[in-house]
Amino acid sequence: MERVKIGLIGFGTVGSGFYSLMEKNGIRFKEKLGVNIELAKIAEIEPDKVLSAFPNQKVVQNFKEIIEDPDIPIVIELVGGIDTAYEIIKSALLKGKHVITANKALLALHGDELFRLAREKRVKLKFEASVCGGIPIIKVVRESLIGNRVERISGIMNGTANYILTRMTEEQMGFQEALREAQSRGFAERDPSLDVEGGDSAHKISLLASFSFGQWIDYRKVLCEGITTVTPEEIEFASSSGFIFKLIASAELINGRPAVTVFPALLPKEHPLASVRNESNAVFISSDFAGPSLYLGRGAGGNATASSVASDLGDLVQRIVLKTKGDIAQIETSNRSELYPYQDISYRYFFHFITENRPGIWAAVTGLLAENGINIESVHQKWEDRSKPSNLYVLVDPAEEKKAKKALNEIVSSQGISESSRFYRIIQP
Amino acid sequence: MERVKIGLIGFGTVGSGFYSLMEKNGIRFKEKLGVNIELAKIAEIEPDKVLSAFPNQKVVQNFKEIIEDPDIPIVIELVGGIDTAYEIIKSALLKGKHVITANKALLALHGDELFRLAREKRVKLKFEASVCGGIPIIKVVRESLIGNRVERISGIMNGTANYILTRMTEEQMGFQEALREAQSRGFAERDPSLDVEGGDSAHKISLLASFSFGQWIDYRKVLCEGITTVTPEEIEFASSSGFIFKLIASAELINGRPAVTVFPALLPKEHPLASVRNESNAVFISSDFAGPSLYLGRGAGGNATASSVASDLGDLVQRIVLKTKGDIAQIETSNRSELYPYQDISYRYFFHFITENRPGIWAAVTGLLAENGINIESVHQKWEDRSKPSNLYVLVDPAEEKKAKKALNEIVSSQGISESSRFYRIIQP
Repeated sequence: MERVKIGLIGFGTVGSGFYSLMEKNGIRFKEKLGVNIELAKIAEIEPDKVLSAFPNQKVVQNFKEIIEDPDIPIVIELVGGIDTAYEIIKSALLKGKHVITANKALLALHGDELFRLAREKRVKLKFEASVCGGIPIIKVVRESLIGNRVERISGIMNGTANYILTRMTEEQMGFQEALREAQSRGFAERDPSLDVEGGDSAHKISLLASFSFGQWIDYRKVLCEGITTVTPEEIEFASSSGFIFKLIASAELINGRPAVTVFPALLPKEHPLASVRNESNAVFISSDFAGPSLYLGRGAGGNATASSVASDLGDLVQRIVLKTKGDIAQIETSNRSELYPYQDISYRYFFHFITENRPGIWAAVTGLLAENGINIESVHQKWEDRSKPSNLYVLVDPAEEKKAKKALNEIVSSQGISESSRFYRIIQP
Repeated sequence: MERVKIGLIGFGTVGSGFYSLMEKNGIRFKEKLGVNIELAKIAEIEPDKVLSAFPNQKVVQNFKEIIEDPDIPIVIELVGGIDTAYEIIKSALLKGKHVITANKALLALHGDELFRLAREKRVKLKFEASVCGGIPIIKVVRESLIGNRVERISGIMNGTANYILTRMTEEQMGFQEALREAQSRGFAERDPSLDVEGGDSAHKISLLASFSFGQWIDYRKVLCEGITTVTPEEIEFASSSGFIFKLIASAELINGRPAVTVFPALLPKEHPLASVRNESNAVFISSDFAGPSLYLGRGAGGNATASSVASDLGDLVQRIVLKTKGDIAQIETSNRSELYPYQDISYRYFFHFITENRPGIWAAVTGLLAENGINIESVHQKWEDRSKPSNLYVLVDPAEEKKAKKALNEIVSSQGISESSRFYRIIQP
């Protein structure tokens, strides 16, 4: 039987999940592919982390011992972070090794360079595990939908944010309380900013959109808003109007240019993403022949992410054993176009004005919306205590983002209306 | 640029869908794979069907002109049916050509022989389009989940049956009325028996289970019940008790043996498959590392099915252009084990007794359930007219199928209880 050696770098949540997978299911590669996979070396900066649990493993402290080993054709980078991971992947590719990574932040930042390098060296840089954990969305987009034009991708791509919003919705918790609960249950990092401020979702949607639309998309240009401003009162009002708050990452082609956004959106309750709860992730794809499709599963966690690492490993092992030469599957990191300006996208909006109790408020709000050509669907005001600021909720018909923004800026300049007034966008199914 | 010729046999719904896909998106294979795919010949028994729409195509009446053409390495069989399709696939494989098919009925019947032949000839027999149309479930199970043990697959795999049940549920239609509507809207064949009696779902779940569990499963041994007996009254009662009727195809390993079933089941409303409406299909997979995952999309229709044909084509074209030799991905059609006897599976049940209005009915029902060790959860009786038979609905705790069946047989032997009394099984999430 053919034998393929692999090197694992990093033994944190995903690395140890992958180790368990190989222990339990490594035989699947024999059964299904007729290949014996040997985990030849594990590099971990704290070797005792591995050795205390698995004393017989070949553990090295310096990842270069894997990169320099000519018998290892596949390197699995699971250290996370940017600088070391970049060094690992780049040096492995330069040595002509295939690389598997789960590192979305690194790929979003340096993917164009690294994918180009992989192409030049005629090796593969695989990254199924980097987007939505156990959901096989990269393979779906790149292989299953190859005969399609992808029209739109939208999804719940961050389990932490979805868990927090679910708890806020179902238990009327505030953001901080829900965050603390998520942290105590292991669904949020100690520093949750990448998750709750949308950056992690922006990394993922940029990668997905790049491969779906065939042009490299810079995540730093994506409209990115997080969930930190969302309140239980907003969630409750949205719910009474038939909407659910979700952090939605979305990409579509408008006039041939990619419009890519991340923001907390109001979804009608019948939207296929509205019922995705807790730490689950889900991706909805609309494409011209396959039609609408939805993929739902675990977006994070050591085991689910390890499952995607194994999927990439299966593909690479086949290449090696079949002695496949060359690589025709192109990643078009060199194609670039400007993003479609999000200011020109039209949405329905849910405005939330925080107002004093004085004459002229409604006149200012309704007058300035009208001046900007924005049509009101409905207005709702709720006073808890007439001596305190109240919440004025206004649902409006579709309008361009720039008009909504201009109207908001003008309205918050009026007397008696708080500058922390804001709007959220409504996404239709 | 590399050039690969393909031959298309059959120009019905899926064949013409695939033709449109290549017309519109054939360039995607150039962009993504660097390959020029040439649709060299179309075989269609009624050539005018093609020529009237596309006069410049090379249309042949006899499929052998494609099989015998040494320049065509890939044959796409989309004629449907059994005998001719079998002849096409077998002769193409014997000639050393790769084959793509959407024909689940044929594969369920002759798959073991045809997959073995493909292996011997070192070519591929691809069939993504044969299970759940546009949902890429074969690739997910065989490639994305390769590092997992699949524990359970359950799904709504027949769009016709799901459409009918949805209309019966939402519009209180009878079965015949909903079927006629499905036929008039193109969601049901003139002869709908394969769809509504469960046979089509049995074909699909047998194929999926074969590849998930690594042993060939004979669809004729699958427990298979259709939806023809389901009434609007049953649906209404189920709904008032928190359940939705769905035709569920399911496979799981019990004590290492596959238990494979198709039947109309009651799903709790929070079950992930309960909200799948109309002609949609969905597959839920539980596996040991990826965890639970759900795949939802169009299960039929020319375009969605063509999308899956294109996915297989992309894989084959890569093999050819990269001159991949051999094939290590095994399909274990030679492994066989007996199915787990469905009589030993435990379910909760919803019994529906059709009874006369006379003393002793409740005593017979409750007594015979007790004698068979079946515990009653709740009993509901509804009289429309006390001179006519009434419906007695009984929900019971989990019990083995054979006990439920024995109890039913004994109860319908009692005086005043109709022989058409029946039960449905309840599936938990």
